[in-house]
Amino acid sequence: MARLVVIGGVAAGLSAASRARRLDPSLDILVLEKGSTISYGACGLPYYVEGRVESARQLIVYTPEYFRRERNIEVRTTAEVAAISHPRREVVLAGGERIKYDRLVVGTGARPDRGAIAGADAPHVFTLYTLDDTERLRAFLRERRPKRAAVIGAGYIGLEAADALRVNGLAVTLFASESDLLGRQDPELTKLLAKHLERFHVELRLNTPVRSLDGLGFDVVVLSSGLRPNVELAQEAGIEIGRTGAIRTSERMETNLTGVFAAGDCIETTHLVTGRPVWIPLGTTANKTGRVAGASAAGARERFPGIVGTSIVRVCGLAVAMTGLSVSQARKEGFDPVAARIQSLDRAKYFQWWVKPTTVELVADRRTGRLLGGTVTGFGDGVAGRINVTATALAAKMTVQDFEQLDLCYAPPFAPVWDPLLVAAQQLRKAI
Amino acid sequence: MARLVVIGGVAAGLSAASRARRLDPSLDILVLEKGSTISYGACGLPYYVEGRVESARQLIVYTPEYFRRERNIEVRTTAEVAAISHPRREVVLAGGERIKYDRLVVGTGARPDRGAIAGADAPHVFTLYTLDDTERLRAFLRERRPKRAAVIGAGYIGLEAADALRVNGLAVTLFASESDLLGRQDPELTKLLAKHLERFHVELRLNTPVRSLDGLGFDVVVLSSGLRPNVELAQEAGIEIGRTGAIRTSERMETNLTGVFAAGDCIETTHLVTGRPVWIPLGTTANKTGRVAGASAAGARERFPGIVGTSIVRVCGLAVAMTGLSVSQARKEGFDPVAARIQSLDRAKYFQWWVKPTTVELVADRRTGRLLGGTVTGFGDGVAGRINVTATALAAKMTVQDFEQLDLCYAPPFAPVWDPLLVAAQQLRKAI
Repeated sequence: MARLVVIGGVAAGLSAASRARRLDPSLDILVLEKGSTISYGACGLPYYVEGRVESARQLIVYTPEYFRRERNIEVRTTAEVAAISHPRREVVLAGGERIKYDRLVVGTGARPDRGAIAGADAPHVFTLYTLDDTERLRAFLRERRPKRAAVIGAGYIGLEAADALRVNGLAVTLFASESDLLGRQDPELTKLLAKHLERFHVELRLNTPVRSLDGLGFDVVVLSSGLRPNVELAQEAGIEIGRTGAIRTSERMETNLTGVFAAGDCIETTHLVTGRPVWIPLGTTANKTGRVAGASAAGARERFPGIVGTSIVRVCGLAVAMTGLSVSQARKEGFDPVAARIQSLDRAKYFQWWVKPTTVELVADRRTGRLLGGTVTGFGDGVAGRINVTATALAAKMTVQDFEQLDLCYAPPFAPVWDPLLVAAQQLRKAI
Repeated sequence: MARLVVIGGVAAGLSAASRARRLDPSLDILVLEKGSTISYGACGLPYYVEGRVESARQLIVYTPEYFRRERNIEVRTTAEVAAISHPRREVVLAGGERIKYDRLVVGTGARPDRGAIAGADAPHVFTLYTLDDTERLRAFLRERRPKRAAVIGAGYIGLEAADALRVNGLAVTLFASESDLLGRQDPELTKLLAKHLERFHVELRLNTPVRSLDGLGFDVVVLSSGLRPNVELAQEAGIEIGRTGAIRTSERMETNLTGVFAAGDCIETTHLVTGRPVWIPLGTTANKTGRVAGASAAGARERFPGIVGTSIVRVCGLAVAMTGLSVSQARKEGFDPVAARIQSLDRAKYFQWWVKPTTVELVADRRTGRLLGGTVTGFGDGVAGRINVTATALAAKMTVQDFEQLDLCYAPPFAPVWDPLLVAAQQLRKAI
């Protein structure tokens, strides 16, 4: 009986294990998780800090017992893998135990880089990457009742953390090392978001890299900068690392070592707009690549072609979504970008209590007319829907002209007769 | 100076006039509208009946004065065109006045067929197709305080009308001539919607064609069945009518008569899934085809490739959206359809106050794997977003496999980690 060992028991690892089990009932499957909990919605951690999610249990989808009983998958928690020896086809646990494998899935995730900031190991400094981290922060908030919080890093986790702490009544200062937010290199988006944060009394310090926490005088600090893929284990085992610094895999999620697959936040993937490798760690991609890794480990032929870089975050009620490339990113990738940005109402204006403003920016390549990216901001699910339409158009490599012709739904409670996406596309076509 | 005459002053006609003006400042443009009002949001009429829109003025986007002053477009209301004489390049008004044109745009719209039902001319029988119609209904509701209402026809206008009358406290009976609702030929969708209507005490009579209103005993009747394109004027002028019964045009919206264009609810268009002509009168399509007709009339080269049949309607709070073909429609079009229908939550379940169930059905062609259509039901803007993603995928002629790989956004307030669309696509791929 062949044995599949999976390193990592969160999104990618458990997707892989579950998919492999479904495709091959005869496999012996063992999942090794170094933390104390498996199968939790890591993207929900900021909402646990906020208090909206009341107990950590609400974030846990399945228990190890569930996997054992319902899926015949063995799960060991607090089982840290110290080394992979591929010539021997075995992993070595931190305690020295050796476990044989026939096929291996590496789902070691990522972590914030505490080493870059002096004082990051102090007891009032937290990260929001694992459930264990977050439970410690929750306990600290409850027991110490801190008043002043710093959030280091202005990616989506930093923004969600700032919002969550604000809701808990803390005075929050958000430090961004660069001049922009969310890593989008989009000054307009940064301006809009900065204004929104100001309205909610979150103090934003752009262009302020934090090298040391000593003497800053905050009662609690959340570190959400410098996220890095956990690749040391893989690297030492001879698994190839791509130029993004994350593990390189084929479309089947196989590494350079035969029978060794990788998935989730520790791998790079292909950006379908640029065709180049990119490292964008996100829960959706972790689940999808995990699923393909599991299928491949079970001998099936599935593939994961890549991503277009779609994400969404809710910050103080505002939904901010993006996909593809910003103008600045597109220029760096060698395109000749042109953009149109519009503001519009998100439904018929006589839906007085529901109507909200929304902004749409679309980016295209002037030479080919091809759509390269978009951002949407506003309130509620309409933002998610509109970014997803744009992401779908990117996957299909549509031109702006194709996009302008889309047959999007219309009824007064849901959209204006000219959907904001189509208005932006019309403007963009004029600009090309 | 060349003169453009536009017949019809609502969505298609005014889009055409405005677009022509923008592209050619020198054109002499005259819009002839047979009703007393122009430029109103016809799709908002049910909400005017409901009372959400308090005054008809809220639905009026622009006045004739606005067009004259701001766009240099002449608009005449209560100007009914009785005939078009293309050899003379003139239209003849009902009063006998003759007006010359160099180019003509026909935007005569559609109307419910009162002729098919005995008693349809009684004073308590109304349609919801024009603002004038609707104002009469509003006045009737206010002055007569009817108790029992019948709505004849279970398309989206019928459903919206039933909902609007229900909100006004009337006991509503909705008559559908066929066994299904919304013309989708989808028994599951009909069942779901019927159950929802029942919960809101709207009495639904399926398979009940109404031939006569006499003796039915309703205080007020809204007729929303038998919508027909207004093509008589065009037909008498020698303009070609397609096999759908609506005016046939090129992608530039030109009819068989050179210099005569048509747009809006009176024309047929191409269904991009089947490649065949189809008549689906909707406000979005009217605006888009109007825009292209106007551009063509001004000598520009724009095109309208067609639609994929996307629509959405809100019925007693439930959003029901569709695009492309249902299984039954696909089979009639010669495909070998296979479908998957799933129910899912519309966001992370720990967003307890926001999370709602949603259903997604996707239809594909078994032979080619190509996506053919979808329906989404649920609550709020997420339904619109998900149907629009499906519509975009149809426009791009994606396969189910392409669709399953879409990089849709995820964050707990907006979606579950596996978007319901992707779950449905996974199920569908298994079924193929």
